[in-house]
Amino acid sequence: MKLADMTWPEVGALDRETVVIIPTGSNEQHGPHLPVFTDSILATAVSEAVEAKIGGKILLTPTLWLGASSHHLAFPGSLSNSMAGYNEALKAAIESLHRHGFWKFYVINGHGGNTSLNDVALRELKELHPNLLLGHSGYFTYCADLCAEVLEGPAKMIQHSCEAEVSLMMHVRPDLVREDKLRDDGLSIPVPGMIHFFDEMTEEGSRGYATLATAEKGKRLFDKAVDGLVNAVSLLHAGYNLGG
Amino acid sequence: MKLADMTWPEVGALDRETVVIIPTGSNEQHGPHLPVFTDSILATAVSEAVEAKIGGKILLTPTLWLGASSHHLAFPGSLSNSMAGYNEALKAAIESLHRHGFWKFYVINGHGGNTSLNDVALRELKELHPNLLLGHSGYFTYCADLCAEVLEGPAKMIQHSCEAEVSLMMHVRPDLVREDKLRDDGLSIPVPGMIHFFDEMTEEGSRGYATLATAEKGKRLFDKAVDGLVNAVSLLHAGYNLGG
Amino acid sequence: MKLADMTWPEVGALDRETVVIIPTGSNEQHGPHLPVFTDSILATAVSEAVEAKIGGKILLTPTLWLGASSHHLAFPGSLSNSMAGYNEALKAAIESLHRHGFWKFYVINGHGGNTSLNDVALRELKELHPNLLLGHSGYFTYCADLCAEVLEGPAKMIQHSCEAEVSLMMHVRPDLVREDKLRDDGLSIPVPGMIHFFDEMTEEGSRGYATLATAEKGKRLFDKAVDGLVNAVSLLHAGYNLGG
Amino acid sequence: MKLADMTWPEVGALDRETVVIIPTGSNEQHGPHLPVFTDSILATAVSEAVEAKIGGKILLTPTLWLGASSHHLAFPGSLSNSMAGYNEALKAAIESLHRHGFWKFYVINGHGGNTSLNDVALRELKELHPNLLLGHSGYFTYCADLCAEVLEGPAKMIQHSCEAEVSLMMHVRPDLVREDKLRDDGLSIPVPGMIHFFDEMTEEGSRGYATLATAEKGKRLFDKAVDGLVNAVSLLHAGYNLGG
Amino acid sequence: MKLADMTWPEVGALDRETVVIIPTGSNEQHGPHLPVFTDSILATAVSEAVEAKIGGKILLTPTLWLGASSHHLAFPGSLSNSMAGYNEALKAAIESLHRHGFWKFYVINGHGGNTSLNDVALRELKELHPNLLLGHSGYFTYCADLCAEVLEGPAKMIQHSCEAEVSLMMHVRPDLVREDKLRDDGLSIPVPGMIHFFDEMTEEGSRGYATLATAEKGKRLFDKAVDGLVNAVSLLHAGYNLGG
Amino acid sequence: MKLADMTWPEVGALDRETVVIIPTGSNEQHGPHLPVFTDSILATAVSEAVEAKIGGKILLTPTLWLGASSHHLAFPGSLSNSMAGYNEALKAAIESLHRHGFWKFYVINGHGGNTSLNDVALRELKELHPNLLLGHSGYFTYCADLCAEVLEGPAKMIQHSCEAEVSLMMHVRPDLVREDKLRDDGLSIPVPGMIHFFDEMTEEGSRGYATLATAEKGKRLFDKAVDGLVNAVSLLHAGYNLGG
Repeated sequence: MKLADMTWPEVGALDRETVVIIPTGSNEQHGPHLPVFTDSILATAVSEAVEAKIGGKILLTPTLWLGASSHHLAFPGSLSNSMAGYNEALKAAIESLHRHGFWKFYVINGHGGNTSLNDVALRELKELHPNLLLGHSGYFTYCADLCAEVLEGPAKMIQHSCEAEVSLMMHVRPDLVREDKLRDDGLSIPVPGMIHFFDEMTEEGSRGYATLATAEKGKRLFDKAVDGLVNAVSLLHAGYNLGG
Repeated sequence: MKLADMTWPEVGALDRETVVIIPTGSNEQHGPHLPVFTDSILATAVSEAVEAKIGGKILLTPTLWLGASSHHLAFPGSLSNSMAGYNEALKAAIESLHRHGFWKFYVINGHGGNTSLNDVALRELKELHPNLLLGHSGYFTYCADLCAEVLEGPAKMIQHSCEAEVSLMMHVRPDLVREDKLRDDGLSIPVPGMIHFFDEMTEEGSRGYATLATAEKGKRLFDKAVDGLVNAVSLLHAGYNLGG
Repeated sequence: MKLADMTWPEVGALDRETVVIIPTGSNEQHGPHLPVFTDSILATAVSEAVEAKIGGKILLTPTLWLGASSHHLAFPGSLSNSMAGYNEALKAAIESLHRHGFWKFYVINGHGGNTSLNDVALRELKELHPNLLLGHSGYFTYCADLCAEVLEGPAKMIQHSCEAEVSLMMHVRPDLVREDKLRDDGLSIPVPGMIHFFDEMTEEGSRGYATLATAEKGKRLFDKAVDGLVNAVSLLHAGYNLGG
Repeated sequence: MKLADMTWPEVGALDRETVVIIPTGSNEQHGPHLPVFTDSILATAVSEAVEAKIGGKILLTPTLWLGASSHHLAFPGSLSNSMAGYNEALKAAIESLHRHGFWKFYVINGHGGNTSLNDVALRELKELHPNLLLGHSGYFTYCADLCAEVLEGPAKMIQHSCEAEVSLMMHVRPDLVREDKLRDDGLSIPVPGMIHFFDEMTEEGSRGYATLATAEKGKRLFDKAVDGLVNAVSLLHAGYNLGG
Repeated sequence: MKLADMTWPEVGALDRETVVIIPTGSNEQHGPHLPVFTDSILATAVSEAVEAKIGGKILLTPTLWLGASSHHLAFPGSLSNSMAGYNEALKAAIESLHRHGFWKFYVINGHGGNTSLNDVALRELKELHPNLLLGHSGYFTYCADLCAEVLEGPAKMIQHSCEAEVSLMMHVRPDLVREDKLRDDGLSIPVPGMIHFFDEMTEEGSRGYATLATAEKGKRLFDKAVDGLVNAVSLLHAGYNLGG
Repeated sequence: MKLADMTWPEVGALDRETVVIIPTGSNEQHGPHLPVFTDSILATAVSEAVEAKIGGKILLTPTLWLGASSHHLAFPGSLSNSMAGYNEALKAAIESLHRHGFWKFYVINGHGGNTSLNDVALRELKELHPNLLLGHSGYFTYCADLCAEVLEGPAKMIQHSCEAEVSLMMHVRPDLVREDKLRDDGLSIPVPGMIHFFDEMTEEGSRGYATLATAEKGKRLFDKAVDGLVNAVSLLHAGYNLGG
């Protein structure tokens, strides 16, 4: 079910085993070839596809689209929430529904820059409400293996406005891909864990081999992510158990 | 122009006299007859209608939909940002674009509970960045006079899921109005400025005379708000001047 | 009763239906003709007049005089609390007395710049302590109708160091009015909800028609505000009820 | 000069060597014999006496009366700001005047519970504005030596609603002293630096030998504190220098 | 060089290309067989070994040992900083030295629970000080490949008080390993990104195959991590460049 | 017992009358003759000496070494936590162990700049957890009387890198004293409570008569502090009572 369209008595009538799905995205530059809302578009599209398959097990909230994107702020049109603001928003959304009796929450993330913050926010919530069942993951985690197989460029993972992400957008919203602007970009980083702005490590904001993107690759990655999430969320719904 | 669909070079090419429009809404109970996303739907629809008329003067951001709705939290499905989280998000959105050279911002609000917070956030920004041109208003301010004329029930202003708001939804998203659930509701408050929860002062979450709503009233109010905003935003664009 | 003068056993002996009255003011420029403490002086004077009439129903706290006045900071002698600091102070005062069993609180405000903040603070308190009875209002709300009648200048409401406010000071503290400095000032703002500093929209800090002020107008406005507040606070004391 | 009574042009005309004096007090229980505003009354009275002597060197602000009094909250009528709220208020007052060119600030404190917080706030300000000249002290520091001489009870320092403080109130505001309620109270603490509530270490809220208080002792202590402060503030005004 | 032992003139004389190394650890339960300070001990030992090899390129600070360990708090003796407190401490340490002209910082982390927080803190710093060169990594990242080879149990990575971590402690501080208490523990988690407490997913606090640990394995992992870090830090010192 | 070396079952087995000892120090310049870790070294050494004498009554945590040292930041190598960060860390350490049933805490401080902050943090904790037994003191409080007797220079108290502190370091860690750099330094401050940076009131960072330091003086002061603390902590352990 999609929360936005429901009335409160309809929400009130839901089974409390329902898994609340919260998509998180961003509004940040994606090079000259993808729109700034790309991460939000993809996290939403994947989440809605999951909802289309197992809607009876899910309460899908609107997308928290104002991500943590300070590393993109040199590029016009990028919006970034503060770290504190992002943290508050995610916690507030979950605490609101927790008050109504929901206790299973899974965040489907479309923006790598949100990952650490999703982790911190959920850990803070767990501390406050130990009985909550909380999880978060990039949708891209669920198609990481397929990336290594499908991608033709040397980067075998989702990066940013890259072969994988452009492919996904060609599948989901081809009207928003500027095909004439596709370009490969991005420098390699020789030391693990360095913190860089995108204007330090790209020429025009993308990382990876966008010129190799195709809608067909996008469809395969998309379907893989949806299938994996359908499976994971179904486990959470059914009564997820820590294994022996 | 709609920011979400643009690439960063496209945003970068915009004239910096462009007025940034930020819609603010909520995800909160609207009685048994309207969906929880009503305020966000209406603020977005009005803003998009303004953009459709004078798009060349406007950069329209995605809607900040996670409003301050703690007074509705007793009703399932209501989400409320914390006061601090709401404040951070609005300020961060504006500061991001300020960094890119935009300096005219107008917030179009769809939820009364955000009004004080929009005021506080913009005043804090003004303190930090005195040269910004900042304003905020409910879209409903722009059709307040017409309300007094159009509404047939005793409440002559927009309240909550009332004659006016249901009429607007009948005009904008009739598919989401539960016509069979329409009801009049809400108690009167004998002292100015009292702080109440909606479960204290309504039976099922709405205030006003929803049973009197019609799509035609909605169209009139909607068009009036849009016209007023088109005029106001055009003033800001043209080089708004404080009068003598 | 006035809290400042009481001992703790005397406070402890009070009926817990007693309404706690908290005046909020400011210390900010009021043009060349009124002292910076004007808002605090007036909020205090009105509150004390209410207390003089129905002291047995009221516990009057000292005035929270450090208001939110960042829009006046260009003028020497203006002090402004931070938004966060103002919020903390008001909440802390109420939470302290809540701990002692008081549960009815009404804030009498003398400074427009505090209004949004009073709203936010009381809503946060209501969320934490749902059983509190909380309200806030400018004293000027209670004489707004009379303003339209009494004021001779084109501005028919209380603005800032204007015909109404100077009149009130001529009634309450004539020794502090610089009659030789009275002046009309202030520009009109063509778009609703714009955020401006007072140095942007006035020449010397006042808005309105101070030259038309008289002590007699002040007395009428003052008495009207006091009467309205006596009535409102008495309702809160007696067992205020939401109407049908 | 007293800030509250001044207009902004009058403040603007002041010499910027003027020392800003900020009294800090509390609104907290003082046993059955003194009113809750005692600390604020005394800090204000001392500050005004200093101003009466060397007013041309001083800009005296209104008293920050909402102190940090959580250790007194068990007693009805005690108000306590949060630690954060107190910190914000003091810093905001100073930063406001710093913006107007004042740079010499001295806090005259009337409440021991504010001491650590005054220290923290001023150190934070010094970090932000290294050129500020900042100091704080209890007025009681300036009569500490005389206490040892004047007080007859075994406690040879100012404690709380004690011989010294009651004496001061007998001198300053005898109408507010409940002479028939005077009592000795308070337990001794065998380990340095223990954190206690007043309901843990007193019977009725006072510490020390209030029954020994006299107005004459109060006058001597008061005058000593005023003289010491006049001297100290004059040094700050004249161009205070760190000694060799 | 080790900062703790140096005087300020000695620090002042250092070349500003020096890489500041900040070890981060924890004080949290490590099962019945390892002491609570394990993560701090290992992060410190690795960092000191790096310093022993290339001390002239490094300024090694004391270890930030109060980690983010809320997921371990059910076990006595575990200390956890708040998320905010951890963030402040790391940022403050770096900003202090940044003020002295150092601009290359690398955090060597010994506790997985700090990883997200190190990321957030460094990103916030980068936003404030864009010219800083900032990086962070678990020391365990540098021996991850060798883990897959060396470890005999089914878990092929460092977990918590596991085969790898106990081996490392057998190498570094064998006196602190309770060999008679070694045990295998920990449940598997069927969905990625779930947030769990250690009392939910272990019996006695450890995860992995501690019974298989040996000092020899520990030495190999330790040396591998040190070698990798020596190489990485040397790159940062020499003038680390983003690759083509 | 020393917490760092213990396992959680060992901590779990402790008597809850055990007094938790938390040393607090700093990492800040101590002139040209002492290392930056001096305050942490001394607070730790004193605490360990107390533990060596009455270890069965004590749980000694690692030292919170990142103190509040903003007044030393002009000198390279000084690290200062923010006021907020210091506050969070101390509260978090205590709240963690409070969760495990410990309720007696005593902070042994080695840095004057932490004193106000220790006071504020413990008062905040006391408000949250009224049943905690909380105290804090500089170790130097316990040898203050002896200072007046032992010190030969005109300063009869511990200042900073002075006769007393250098003497203590000569006793505890003579290898870290730069004897050839010892110097007397520091200006006198003619007004109580002034807030100064160390670069304003010293030439090279120390205050007092370091040239008069001897290891023997250090031993006497050290032993006196240890004895006093052993006595105080034993009282807390035994069932400390407020005296009549």
